[in-house]
Amino acid sequence: MTIVGIGPGDVASRTGAADEAIAAATDVVGYRLYLDLLGPALTGKTTHQSDLGAEEERARKALDLAASGRAVALVSSGDAGIYGLASLVFELLDREEHAAWQRVAIGVVPGVSAMQAAAARLGAPLGHDFCAISLSDLLTPWATIERRLKAAAAADFVIALYNPRSARRGTQLQIACDILLAERGGDTPVALARNLGRDGESVAVTTLAALDPVAVDMLTLVIIGNSTTRKLAGKMLLYTPRGYAAKRPR
Amino acid sequence: MTIVGIGPGDVASRTGAADEAIAAATDVVGYRLYLDLLGPALTGKTTHQSDLGAEEERARKALDLAASGRAVALVSSGDAGIYGLASLVFELLDREEHAAWQRVAIGVVPGVSAMQAAAARLGAPLGHDFCAISLSDLLTPWATIERRLKAAAAADFVIALYNPRSARRGTQLQIACDILLAERGGDTPVALARNLGRDGESVAVTTLAALDPVAVDMLTLVIIGNSTTRKLAGKMLLYTPRGYAAKRPR
Repeated sequence: MTIVGIGPGDVASRTGAADEAIAAATDVVGYRLYLDLLGPALTGKTTHQSDLGAEEERARKALDLAASGRAVALVSSGDAGIYGLASLVFELLDREEHAAWQRVAIGVVPGVSAMQAAAARLGAPLGHDFCAISLSDLLTPWATIERRLKAAAAADFVIALYNPRSARRGTQLQIACDILLAERGGDTPVALARNLGRDGESVAVTTLAALDPVAVDMLTLVIIGNSTTRKLAGKMLLYTPRGYAAKRPR
Repeated sequence: MTIVGIGPGDVASRTGAADEAIAAATDVVGYRLYLDLLGPALTGKTTHQSDLGAEEERARKALDLAASGRAVALVSSGDAGIYGLASLVFELLDREEHAAWQRVAIGVVPGVSAMQAAAARLGAPLGHDFCAISLSDLLTPWATIERRLKAAAAADFVIALYNPRSARRGTQLQIACDILLAERGGDTPVALARNLGRDGESVAVTTLAALDPVAVDMLTLVIIGNSTTRKLAGKMLLYTPRGYAAKRPR
């Protein structure tokens, strides 16, 4: 079975290896929306859709099908290894005694994660050391998330925030901004990228002080610059320098 | 002009958008080794090779060619936005007054970065919040790097180390390990991935206490697990859980 990262959604952002893994599968398992993104690549295949949030059900289904002899592709959006389903599959294999599962050969195909699609569209905001942090406290204690935000703020990392806000989690993003504002200027560039590679995609550039959490939802990826991140005058482009200018003889 | 991330090296790891950008170019600019990786995709194109380390020369050459009307692809390995050339191009545009450069339309095509290729090959070590840190102090003061290592260690991030060691920089990786050992157990899983997607690729799994810096060079990507990262018994597979097991009713 192959756990496949299909990238942000558009065909052009998929790797050849992702296309090949889906083509080789008899059965494709995934969240409804991600399967919709695959469109014609699913022709002739048995699909197994599930709802958002049913990650464990999806992972178990994929393992059961593979154990029964089907050729399975389990799809994640973005990179299956970055807030995707790969970790959950290996966790199930590690913690549960299913002899049939243990015989399944498992491959992982990486893909373009949301922060990368967002960064490319916006210039090069991830141009130096960065962190990825999920603001979802459904599976991670908020104290752990807050500790990571404080550490990332203090050490001047560029920060990509995944799952920044949902209908049920309305407050975390503002708390995160307040933590960052204690260490970075209010004029720190912030980028919002929503639904990249899908219908209705949008990007916006704002600042840490001006960021309005209401403009952000679960489909948005937020990138917060570090102290050196700059916006190009008059353009919706950001970059974080690696330090070439500082090293250049004047 | 398009700044193109070609992934780790193998054709299957390239996105369709990367292939299209190279196909559309008249001129391809890049480090010699990366151009070699493109092989037949370069047939009929004018290539502009340069040595490793000549990043600024490459970026200027690409901008000059594009300003003169050529269709240019500037290639980076991995993701052009993650320790790649995209940031340098935007930095040059921001800091220098070249009217001809300012008329160049610039696109960035993301790609699979080394940490993603390594993570996929090794299971799912990047399965929860992580940082990417370059250990190269050619452009970044060592004090800044050390501050980031300490913060990442204290906040229990998984850590991907880029440029971990070179012939001229022999000591940084051991210092980094010592910083991490102050916060994490010696049995913390560590993965080494070298030359993935290229000839002579290799992966290895060790621990923080047992890591031998001499086994690491500039072509190696090092992933250091967090306190929850686990190795599957008897397999060269690691994963960092997101916390599903902790949430499951017992």
